[in-house]
Amino acid sequence: MGRFGGSLISIKDLDRDSLEEVFAATDRMMAMPAAERREVCRGRVLGYLFYEPSTRTRLSFEAAMASVGGSSLGIADAASSSAQKGESLADTVRMLSMYSDVIVLRHPLDGSSRFASEVSGVPVINGGSGTEEHPTQAIQDLFTIRREKGRIDGLKVGIIGDLKHGRTVYSLLHGLGNYDVDVRLVSPEPLRIRPDSTYEIRKKIDYVESDDLADHVSELDVLYVTRIQRERFPDEEEYLKVRGSYVVGLDVLGRMKKDSIVLHPLPRLDEISADVDSSPHARYFEQAGYGMHTRAALLGLVLGS
Amino acid sequence: MGRFGGSLISIKDLDRDSLEEVFAATDRMMAMPAAERREVCRGRVLGYLFYEPSTRTRLSFEAAMASVGGSSLGIADAASSSAQKGESLADTVRMLSMYSDVIVLRHPLDGSSRFASEVSGVPVINGGSGTEEHPTQAIQDLFTIRREKGRIDGLKVGIIGDLKHGRTVYSLLHGLGNYDVDVRLVSPEPLRIRPDSTYEIRKKIDYVESDDLADHVSELDVLYVTRIQRERFPDEEEYLKVRGSYVVGLDVLGRMKKDSIVLHPLPRLDEISADVDSSPHARYFEQAGYGMHTRAALLGLVLGS
Amino acid sequence: MGRFGGSLISIKDLDRDSLEEVFAATDRMMAMPAAERREVCRGRVLGYLFYEPSTRTRLSFEAAMASVGGSSLGIADAASSSAQKGESLADTVRMLSMYSDVIVLRHPLDGSSRFASEVSGVPVINGGSGTEEHPTQAIQDLFTIRREKGRIDGLKVGIIGDLKHGRTVYSLLHGLGNYDVDVRLVSPEPLRIRPDSTYEIRKKIDYVESDDLADHVSELDVLYVTRIQRERFPDEEEYLKVRGSYVVGLDVLGRMKKDSIVLHPLPRLDEISADVDSSPHARYFEQAGYGMHTRAALLGLVLGS
Repeated sequence: MGRFGGSLISIKDLDRDSLEEVFAATDRMMAMPAAERREVCRGRVLGYLFYEPSTRTRLSFEAAMASVGGSSLGIADAASSSAQKGESLADTVRMLSMYSDVIVLRHPLDGSSRFASEVSGVPVINGGSGTEEHPTQAIQDLFTIRREKGRIDGLKVGIIGDLKHGRTVYSLLHGLGNYDVDVRLVSPEPLRIRPDSTYEIRKKIDYVESDDLADHVSELDVLYVTRIQRERFPDEEEYLKVRGSYVVGLDVLGRMKKDSIVLHPLPRLDEISADVDSSPHARYFEQAGYGMHTRAALLGLVLGS
Repeated sequence: MGRFGGSLISIKDLDRDSLEEVFAATDRMMAMPAAERREVCRGRVLGYLFYEPSTRTRLSFEAAMASVGGSSLGIADAASSSAQKGESLADTVRMLSMYSDVIVLRHPLDGSSRFASEVSGVPVINGGSGTEEHPTQAIQDLFTIRREKGRIDGLKVGIIGDLKHGRTVYSLLHGLGNYDVDVRLVSPEPLRIRPDSTYEIRKKIDYVESDDLADHVSELDVLYVTRIQRERFPDEEEYLKVRGSYVVGLDVLGRMKKDSIVLHPLPRLDEISADVDSSPHARYFEQAGYGMHTRAALLGLVLGS
Repeated sequence: MGRFGGSLISIKDLDRDSLEEVFAATDRMMAMPAAERREVCRGRVLGYLFYEPSTRTRLSFEAAMASVGGSSLGIADAASSSAQKGESLADTVRMLSMYSDVIVLRHPLDGSSRFASEVSGVPVINGGSGTEEHPTQAIQDLFTIRREKGRIDGLKVGIIGDLKHGRTVYSLLHGLGNYDVDVRLVSPEPLRIRPDSTYEIRKKIDYVESDDLADHVSELDVLYVTRIQRERFPDEEEYLKVRGSYVVGLDVLGRMKKDSIVLHPLPRLDEISADVDSSPHARYFEQAGYGMHTRAALLGLVLGS
């Protein structure tokens, strides 16, 4: 399977060819009859190890594994699990690697997945780590853009919301760096993207920053909305101040191009109003569905089957 | 599959023919060789979403799905799950419907399942909602009566315990309303059935209310015992006052007809004494077993397979 | 299947022939092609019921069941589960036995598994109970010794750490009692093995007790290290006093026989230092892996397939 056959640690490890390989595998997966698809990882076991809870990512992987004929087991909330009894990450990974064919790890620390892949006896897929990495989310996002717009090159992509916290944006930008895109980052001043985390990104994408969506909305092909992560705010006041800003509603849609699309990694709070759901621009639920298929394709590639 | 092929929201949506269809499908399911049964929903995925914990209902569905060749995933305790992060019921249902072929929803609010079925991309089965609805429990209860007594028509059915709280009783009464039965409701005064919830039921069943089991026990074909739900009592004193009343023990059995049966939706606290378990009247564990088979039959019908 | 075909309650119920039967079944299991192995318990359901959390034991059983073609469901934390609603162990076991083909029970009380096997409609496997019993751990440990050393008879086995608390040691000693072994128990005075729990063991093994590993380390074929279970200490001071003692590091390894092995039931805290992991003596992660295979073999034997 070439470049897959080992772990998937960072979106930065995937060049354009690798990404296109995953997309093509996903296309094949989606076209495959269910009975054939269930043979792809028949009887294989996915072990999940989540030090931060993430129901969506976990369920998406479990559903993906079921769709290719495997099953899942693991620890959904390792951090608060009394069952951990102080065991190190390394030992927990080694233990789980005895019970499974591939491990999906979610962990608050940067570097955790690479470390895990070094002690694990089976491939490790990074299910989100540290401040920047969420490679399977980025793959899902890129696949959605490609599938819904027919291409990624040449598109104008706006990313709006809390760009400071939340690893999704950084991974998406790294992924977009493999394509010829025009990126606009829209956020309130205190939620701007972290300059120290975008050094590599700026080499590949010459993005524009703004605090006003109105400057860009009419030009965008893709509007990617992110959640204001209340729990990451040091100050409730600060949260309440920006909460209402940057909500995408029908007024915003009215200024967008006819064939533009709106994405969101979910869960969504009120940053996209409910009446947008039924608009032809809304693609965030399709995006969630594609996430299951891209993960199924990745499992097939990583497990070499 | 006729009337199934969509969601199962309310016991009120099922007429006598629909119920008999489920019962016949359950009979077939129970007679089927295991290998054949595992083909019925081969590779399909059940997504569970429980805003109230209910281990029994969840395990019963998981076991049912496994028996027909599918698998299960989901959220066992959505209400307390930090993973929810404030997501709406609609979004959570939409997300889960991307990952599964059928959703089982448990939710404290009336109408939640119907609402969920409107936003879900896959059929929704109500696993208990609000104050009145628990259709799969009612189906399980009716199937048990039919299987153990050979029929439902013409039976005298006593329901004893806390008839005010607990949705099971209301769903069972709606189900019984499709048959020609003689119903006696026995409860302490403060735990009487809610008159506002039985308007529709009274059109179909002319039940008798009583606070003394002795008035009826010798006539009953079926004695359905329900738990005093301590957690629903506003006042601990009130709970303790009625706690000891209405316990079914060997003395009660001694006054019952030889071929009468005792049912209970479980879990049981002390409302049926342990020495009843070994009596030929006790059928509550069989009832639990039938619940798995009726749910397997429902999954087959709802998934149209 | 001879002596299996029923429950597995106590390591004391297994004589040498029974143990050898499990080991032979495990050897066959490990040599079996995956597709053939998945037929062994095809479609069967394991129900787990854990009144004490034990992620390792649970995952090991889940992985074992998946490897032989079955699936798992159950209650991972029955004690704290609000879903229990005060139900008795007997009723919970009866309920679960309606949904599964075999039950794995973990429970703090001695005798719980035997009691459960009497009320269950399906075989019960003791996944750890009370102060002495953890038969599947003992089987895993004995299998590891046999597999890694080629035999059990004639070996010198040292067991070090907290020998007072922790059921693993007692079960291992009972298992070793079926073989001709020379056992040394090394522990700080307050953590010595409980004399009242070793009456039966002393009939079969004439073990030596010591508080200094140095007395024995050069003679051992197997060094079995156990965790100091902080949560079982009545007094934090007492814990801190012994915490640093009896740590197995490279200095200890340097005094061991070339072909000796180090085992640990995991999770490991700091009683084995990390630099031991890469030594040829370390076998504790292999031990974890064997645990999955011995449990798969047991499931095959217990389910009579």
